[in-house]
Amino acid sequence: MRAAGYVSGVPDNELLIAATPPPPYTAVIFRSVRSDDGDGYVEMAIEMERLAATQPGYLGIESSADAKTGLTVSYWASDDDARAWKQIGEHLAAQRIGAERWYRDYVVRVATVHRDYRRLNDNDHDTGNGGS
Amino acid sequence: MRAAGYVSGVPDNELLIAATPPPPYTAVIFRSVRSDDGDGYVEMAIEMERLAATQPGYLGIESSADAKTGLTVSYWASDDDARAWKQIGEHLAAQRIGAERWYRDYVVRVATVHRDYRRLNDNDHDTGNGGS
Repeated sequence: MRAAGYVSGVPDNELLIAATPPPPYTAVIFRSVRSDDGDGYVEMAIEMERLAATQPGYLGIESSADAKTGLTVSYWASDDDARAWKQIGEHLAAQRIGAERWYRDYVVRVATVHRDYRRLNDNDHDTGNGGS
Repeated sequence: MRAAGYVSGVPDNELLIAATPPPPYTAVIFRSVRSDDGDGYVEMAIEMERLAATQPGYLGIESSADAKTGLTVSYWASDDDARAWKQIGEHLAAQRIGAERWYRDYVVRVATVHRDYRRLNDNDHDTGNGGS
């Protein structure tokens, strides 16, 4: 049985786990601690993810957040692609009056992924979610 | 004014953002999509974070989760330290009957961090959260 997807015919997992190619590729790890002022935050986050997806070298994005913290990792074909996105993303954020309010603190880390492994592939588990 | 910390005298940010040294260091990015069965999940996650903190080369951990997904990045002094933790963590998970149930899918990525920057440092903002 296949889990219901956000997009018809696409399993949830395919949207929640980035379909990265074999390493190496570049990861931009964005850790944030939010302020108490959340007005407009969700709309901004959606806009940023949508914009990232249109950039050269974009491979995918993974994000989770609770009421207080956020963790987003975007994946890029090269270090240069990641660097270009950082500049565009910061430029967009700077244009927004709200951006200064949303975060109490944040750290960005740029990293090269050397190895990766996926449960579904590694252990050949049938989780009932389909997949190719 | 200083935000109330989970630990007396320690600002929130210091616990929510890993106090990593200057790069390079190693990041283990753990992305998970959870199943509908959450029994025991939170206890396991806390135990894993506590165990990680006792391992050689541990630098810190950052984690956010919503009802469906989780994203955890642990930081390590070296690639060997990260590899050792992966084996210990998997061993612990394998001992638990529940581990198979909690995740619908997951991906682990091991990466070398080359650059990082923090808002508080970069822009010299005074967010009122203290820090050294």
